[in-house]
Amino acid sequence: MKKHYDTIVVGGGIIGNSIAYSLLKRGQSVLVIEKGEINRKASSAAAGMLAAQAEVTEAGPLFDLARKSRNMFPSLNEELMERTGVDIELIQKGMLTTAYTNDKVQELKEVIDFQRSLGEEAVWLTREDIQQVEPNLSEKVIGGMYAPRDGQVSAFKLASGFARGASALGGDYLEFTDVHGLLIEEGRVRGVQALQGEFYSENVVIAGGAWSTFLLKQLDVNLGMYPVKGECFSVITALPLITKTIFAEDCYIVPKREGRILVGATMVPHTFDEKVTADGVSWLLERAISILPALKEAEWERAWAGIRPQTTDGLPYLGVHPTISGLFVATGHYRNGVLLSPITGEVIADMIEQKELPFAMQAFSLDLQTRRGLYEASN
Amino acid sequence: MKKHYDTIVVGGGIIGNSIAYSLLKRGQSVLVIEKGEINRKASSAAAGMLAAQAEVTEAGPLFDLARKSRNMFPSLNEELMERTGVDIELIQKGMLTTAYTNDKVQELKEVIDFQRSLGEEAVWLTREDIQQVEPNLSEKVIGGMYAPRDGQVSAFKLASGFARGASALGGDYLEFTDVHGLLIEEGRVRGVQALQGEFYSENVVIAGGAWSTFLLKQLDVNLGMYPVKGECFSVITALPLITKTIFAEDCYIVPKREGRILVGATMVPHTFDEKVTADGVSWLLERAISILPALKEAEWERAWAGIRPQTTDGLPYLGVHPTISGLFVATGHYRNGVLLSPITGEVIADMIEQKELPFAMQAFSLDLQTRRGLYEASN
Amino acid sequence: MKKHYDTIVVGGGIIGNSIAYSLLKRGQSVLVIEKGEINRKASSAAAGMLAAQAEVTEAGPLFDLARKSRNMFPSLNEELMERTGVDIELIQKGMLTTAYTNDKVQELKEVIDFQRSLGEEAVWLTREDIQQVEPNLSEKVIGGMYAPRDGQVSAFKLASGFARGASALGGDYLEFTDVHGLLIEEGRVRGVQALQGEFYSENVVIAGGAWSTFLLKQLDVNLGMYPVKGECFSVITALPLITKTIFAEDCYIVPKREGRILVGATMVPHTFDEKVTADGVSWLLERAISILPALKEAEWERAWAGIRPQTTDGLPYLGVHPTISGLFVATGHYRNGVLLSPITGEVIADMIEQKELPFAMQAFSLDLQTRRGLYEASN
Amino acid sequence: MKKHYDTIVVGGGIIGNSIAYSLLKRGQSVLVIEKGEINRKASSAAAGMLAAQAEVTEAGPLFDLARKSRNMFPSLNEELMERTGVDIELIQKGMLTTAYTNDKVQELKEVIDFQRSLGEEAVWLTREDIQQVEPNLSEKVIGGMYAPRDGQVSAFKLASGFARGASALGGDYLEFTDVHGLLIEEGRVRGVQALQGEFYSENVVIAGGAWSTFLLKQLDVNLGMYPVKGECFSVITALPLITKTIFAEDCYIVPKREGRILVGATMVPHTFDEKVTADGVSWLLERAISILPALKEAEWERAWAGIRPQTTDGLPYLGVHPTISGLFVATGHYRNGVLLSPITGEVIADMIEQKELPFAMQAFSLDLQTRRGLYEASN
Repeated sequence: MKKHYDTIVVGGGIIGNSIAYSLLKRGQSVLVIEKGEINRKASSAAAGMLAAQAEVTEAGPLFDLARKSRNMFPSLNEELMERTGVDIELIQKGMLTTAYTNDKVQELKEVIDFQRSLGEEAVWLTREDIQQVEPNLSEKVIGGMYAPRDGQVSAFKLASGFARGASALGGDYLEFTDVHGLLIEEGRVRGVQALQGEFYSENVVIAGGAWSTFLLKQLDVNLGMYPVKGECFSVITALPLITKTIFAEDCYIVPKREGRILVGATMVPHTFDEKVTADGVSWLLERAISILPALKEAEWERAWAGIRPQTTDGLPYLGVHPTISGLFVATGHYRNGVLLSPITGEVIADMIEQKELPFAMQAFSLDLQTRRGLYEASN
Repeated sequence: MKKHYDTIVVGGGIIGNSIAYSLLKRGQSVLVIEKGEINRKASSAAAGMLAAQAEVTEAGPLFDLARKSRNMFPSLNEELMERTGVDIELIQKGMLTTAYTNDKVQELKEVIDFQRSLGEEAVWLTREDIQQVEPNLSEKVIGGMYAPRDGQVSAFKLASGFARGASALGGDYLEFTDVHGLLIEEGRVRGVQALQGEFYSENVVIAGGAWSTFLLKQLDVNLGMYPVKGECFSVITALPLITKTIFAEDCYIVPKREGRILVGATMVPHTFDEKVTADGVSWLLERAISILPALKEAEWERAWAGIRPQTTDGLPYLGVHPTISGLFVATGHYRNGVLLSPITGEVIADMIEQKELPFAMQAFSLDLQTRRGLYEASN
Repeated sequence: MKKHYDTIVVGGGIIGNSIAYSLLKRGQSVLVIEKGEINRKASSAAAGMLAAQAEVTEAGPLFDLARKSRNMFPSLNEELMERTGVDIELIQKGMLTTAYTNDKVQELKEVIDFQRSLGEEAVWLTREDIQQVEPNLSEKVIGGMYAPRDGQVSAFKLASGFARGASALGGDYLEFTDVHGLLIEEGRVRGVQALQGEFYSENVVIAGGAWSTFLLKQLDVNLGMYPVKGECFSVITALPLITKTIFAEDCYIVPKREGRILVGATMVPHTFDEKVTADGVSWLLERAISILPALKEAEWERAWAGIRPQTTDGLPYLGVHPTISGLFVATGHYRNGVLLSPITGEVIADMIEQKELPFAMQAFSLDLQTRRGLYEASN
Repeated sequence: MKKHYDTIVVGGGIIGNSIAYSLLKRGQSVLVIEKGEINRKASSAAAGMLAAQAEVTEAGPLFDLARKSRNMFPSLNEELMERTGVDIELIQKGMLTTAYTNDKVQELKEVIDFQRSLGEEAVWLTREDIQQVEPNLSEKVIGGMYAPRDGQVSAFKLASGFARGASALGGDYLEFTDVHGLLIEEGRVRGVQALQGEFYSENVVIAGGAWSTFLLKQLDVNLGMYPVKGECFSVITALPLITKTIFAEDCYIVPKREGRILVGATMVPHTFDEKVTADGVSWLLERAISILPALKEAEWERAWAGIRPQTTDGLPYLGVHPTISGLFVATGHYRNGVLLSPITGEVIADMIEQKELPFAMQAFSLDLQTRRGLYEASN
C-alpha cells in the first residue's frame, strides 16, 4: 500500500466503489478506506431496483440523472462481467407501479404523460391488463403504470463488481479503518487521518452514505442529511409469482433470480440502528400479502435492514466543497443509491478531472442556495 | 461400536435420548440410531414449555402423567448438570393462560377448580392482578389462570443433556442412519436392519416422533398418528417484557434467558415439510403483538419449524407391541414431548425391565381398544 | 398434485432433477420425490468441476460419456437462463492437472497422448509455462496437463436450474418424503409407496445418490455401491489467485465467481455422516496451501461435506432393471455427478422412451456381468 | 433517554458494561454508548479463560489484580443469575500449562514456586500425572503446571450479564453510535459529542478496547496501545476430550459446555481487520491437533476473530486523565479482558467516587512514568 494517491475515497459502499472504479479506468491511483467491510451496509441491504421512472415522478435534474444512470446498466453489465467475472444479475422486465384508488389512478396517468413528454416509455395497464400480465396480483390493484425500461440488479453483486473492478485495475483497499479527519493545508485537501495513520492524496471524496455526516460536520458543511432505516425480507418460491418488479404504495416486491422474492422497505428515520423489529416484519408481511396473496405460501427466508442517507430536499449531494479545493462529496442517494451508482462514479470523476459539467448538476451542489435556485428554476 | 445390545432405540430425539439415558442408568447397553443428526428435528424446534396444567385441561391419565413428569424436572436439572455439564435452563416462574372473553373466563375457572381438586396449585388472576404481575400484556386480556408450578426449559439443552448423559454412561450413537426394517424371529424382535447393516438387540424401542409411522406400518400397527408442523419465531429484548410463560388461545409466548422471547406455534397438519411460510410468520406476529404490544419494538431474530407427532385421540403411544415381544413404541407426544420426556424414559425402561406398571398406563397402549376403554373409564 | 404420472423420479438431487427436466421437455408428466429438501445433499456440496479430461484418464465408455456431457454445457447454460433465469455460472477457462514428480510428468504426458488420439485438446505445460499462466502456483509444480475445454459450473445453481426448469414445465415436487417401497405388479413397476401414501406411474427412476442403496436392496439389485464423504472449504480473495481449475493429486482448487475459491475434497468411504472433522479441514488446508501458497492470506469462509455414491468398478449405474420393467436406476456418479448430469438426463429419458442406445451404454448396466464384459472389451 | 448522566461510558464491550454495572449498583445514572452492537467485538470472540496464574507468570500489580478479579467470579456468577437470569457458565476445573521441553519444565517449576510463595495453589504434574488426569493429551506433553483455581466462563454470557444487569438497574444504552469527541470545559469533561448529538455527564469513561486510540489521541494521551487480532475456532465432540483448560505454548484449548471445544488464538498485531485467514485456521489446527490428537475426529464448527488492545508494557490502562478531571480510561486488557472485567468495573467506580485506591494501582496509570516507576519498584 502506497502512502500517496491521486484520490482517496472515504466509504467502501456502492457509491465509493463506483467512483473508485471510474477513476481507475481513467488512470488515477486510488485508495478506498472503509470503516468496516466493504459493501456490507446499505449497499448489500438494497433490493436493487432501477426505478428511474417509478421512484422519480416529476421532471427535473434528478429524473434526468436517474434515466441517464439507468441507461448505463446494459453496457456496465457486460463490462463488469468481462473485467471481473461478476454477474450483476441485471433483469430488464420493467416495473409496475400499482394503484388501488381512483386518486392514485389519476396521479399515475399524469406521471405517464410527463414521462412520455420527455421521451420515456410508460404504459397504463387496466385491471384487465394486469390480470393478464401479473395474474397473481390482488384484485385490489385496479390499474398501474408500467415502465418497461426500469429494471433491477443484485445490489450486492453490483457493489462487488465495482470493487473487484477497482481492485483489478490496481485500486487499493483499506477495510476496518475509521477516518477521523481530513488533512487540509492552505485551503486544499492533502489527505486523511485514519486510525492506522495518515494517507495523502490530491483529492478526497466523501462517500460514506449516512455515516458521512461526521466528516461533513467537521468541515462545517451542514447538509441536513439524516439516516433512514429500511427493513426488508425475502422468501423463496418454486415457481415465479410475478415477473415484473411491483412498486406499491407501502412496499415494493422484487422478483430476483432462483425464485427469491425481496420485499422492502420500512422507513424509520433518524436511526443508525440496523436491527430489524418484529413490527417491521409484521408490517411488511401484511402489506405484501395484501398485494400478492400467493406470497402466503412462499418459504420464509430472512429479514435484514440497511441505513439509507436521506436529504432534506430529497436530492443527493454530488459536488465539490465550496471552499476546500480537492474535496468532493457524493452521498444522500437515499433509496436510489443502486440506480445512481454508475452515473455518480462518472460525474465525480469528471469533477475531479475538472471537466465541465452540465448546468443541471448544480441541483446536487453542496451549496444549498445554489441547488435550491436550480431546482426551482427547473420546475 | 458393538453389534449386540440390550436395547436399540430407533430415533435420536428428546424421547429416544431420554429412554436411552434411563436404560443406561439401569445398567443396560444401548444403541441409539438416528436418521439425521441427533436432536435436530422437533426436539430443537420446541419452545420448551412444561405446561402440565396449561396444556392438559381435563382430568385423566395424561394429566397425571404430565404432572408426574413436570415434577421430575428440578432433580433432573441437577442430575444432568452434574453428569454432563449441560444446563437445561429450567425456569420455574409459572404459566399464565389468558382469557379475552367471558366464555373463556368461565372455562378457565372450571379448569382451576378441577386442578385444585387434584391437589395442583392454580390461581385466578383478575385484570387488575394481571396489570400488576405482567403489566406489558394487552388490555384485551381480561383475566387468566396462573399455574405457578408450570415452567419451561431449553428444549434443545434438555435433549442434548439426555444424549450427553447417555454417551457418558457408555451409550452408542449412530447418526445419519436410516432404519429400514426390524429383525423379527419367532414373534420376538432380534434387532434392526439399517442402511449400514444389521444391529442386534434384546429390545427395540421405536421413538422416531412423527417419522415412526413408517416402521409402525411395517408392523401392522396402524396408530392413526399424523405429523403437525409448528412454526415459531424468536425476538430479543434488552429488558424482560414478561416473566411468566403466556399461554394464549392462538399462540404462546415464552420468555427465555438472555432476553430471548420465543413465540409459537402454528399447527399445519399432515405435512413433514419443515419450511416456514410467509403466512405462518405473519399470522404468529399479528397474534403475539396483539397480546403483548411491546413486542413490536423487539429485535427480530429468526423463524423455524418442527414436525410434531399427533395422535387421533390426543394421547401418546407408550407401550409394548401387542404380538411381537421385545418391541416397544414411544411416540405421539405432539406438543408435550419436552414435558413428557423424563417420565417417558422411566416408563419405557420399566416396561423393558418388565416392571409392573400403573393401570392408568393402559391409556397409552398401542392397542386402540384398550386405551379407549381406559380413557372412557377415567372420565 | 396428481396421483398418476408417466414417470416418478425418486431423488431430488442434480441427477433426479436433470432426468425430470429431460422427461418434461419430451412431454411426460413427472413427479420428483425427495426425502429432504431438493438439491441440499451432494448436489449443493460439489465444487462443480467439469473435469471430463482431468478425472477420466483412460479411454472407454466413461470417457466418451463424460466428453459428451461436458460438451452439452454451453447450450444448456443458455437454455436454463432462458427458461428459468438461473445462471449456472459456467466458466470455460480450462483445467490444469499438476505434477510434482517425474513419474507424474510421465503419466500425464501419456494421458495427453491418448486424449489427443481421441480428438480432445490437451497441452503439456512446462514449469516455465505454468510460471506464466498461473504464477501463484508453488514451485513444486514442475509441469502439468492443461485441458482447455474442461471447465466448471456452480453445482447448486445447475441443480437448481434443472429443478426450476422442471417446475416451469409442470413437473410436480414432493419434498420431505421418504419412499419406502416400490409398487410392483406382474413384473412391472406401478408406482411407489411413500410416507404420505401411494403414488402411481408407468415408470420409476431411482436417482437417490448414495441413498439409493436401500431401495436397490429391496429389489435384490446389489450393486456394491458405497457412500464416500467429501469435505470441502471455501475462501475469499479480493484479487484472483488463479484463473484455471487446479487438479492436484490430493485436492482440487476451483476459482469461482466473486473471488470465492473452493477447495476439495477428502475421501472418507463408508459413511453417510455429513459432519466435517477438524482433521479434514486441517488436511485440506495443508495441501492447498502447499500448492497455492498465496491462499494463506485468503479470507476463511466455511467448510462443509457431501456424500457421493461410489461404485466398485468406478462406473455409474445407468440402466433398466433386469427383470422389473419400467424401473430404472441412475446413480453411482461419485465425483462426476455434476459433469454427467446433462447426459444422464437425456440417456435415462431415451431408455424410458425405449429408444435404441449406443452399445457402449452397456458399460453402465445394472447387470454386473454385462458391464464388466463391455468394459473389458473396450480396453 | 435522558440528556444528562452521572457517567457516560464510551464502549459497550465487556469492560464498558462491567463499569456501567458497578456504577449503577452504586446508584449512579449511566449511559453506555457503543459504535456498533454491544458485546459483538472482542467480548464475544474471547475464549473466556480466567487464567490469572497461567497468563501472569511473574509477581507484580497485574498478578495481584488478576487474582483479585478471578476470585470475584463465584459470587458474581450467583449475582448475575439472580439479577438477570444470565448464566455466565463458570467452570472451575483448573488450568494446565503444558511443557514439551526441559527448559519449559524448569520455567514452570519456578512459576509454581513464586505463585505458592504468594499463597496461590499451583501443582506440578509429571507425565504420569497428566496421563492420569488428561489421558487424551499427546505424549509430547512431558509435564505441566496445574492451577486448580483458574477457570473459565462464557465471555459473551459474562458481557451480556453485565449489560443486562446494567439495563435492569436503569442504565441507558445507545448502540450504533460513534462518539466523535469529548465536551471539555475549563479542564473538566462535560460529556461527549456523538453522531446523534451531544450527551452530558459529570464523568466520562473511555472503554472502547482497541478502538479507544482515536479518542485518546484527540486528548493527547498517546498510550502506545495497538490492536492484535486473535483468530479462534471451535469443534464439537460427543464425549469430553479434556476436563481442564489446556494452556500450551502456541495455543489454548478450552472445553466449554455441551461438548464445544474452543481453540485460540493467533496473534496478528497492528490490524483491526476481523477476517480469519486460511493460514490462521491451518496454523491453529496443526498446533491443537499436535497437543490433543483426539481433536482430529471432532466436528468442525466455525472460525472467528477478535481485536484485542495490547499495550507496550503489557499492562492495562486503568486511570484518570492527568489533566482533565472527570475523564477516565479503562482499556488495554489484551488477552485478560474477561478475567479483569469484574475488578475493572469496581476499580473505575472507586476512582469515579474518588475513593482511595491501593498504591499498586499506579502501575496502570495513564501517566507512563508513574506506571513505569511503580512497576520497576515492584520487581
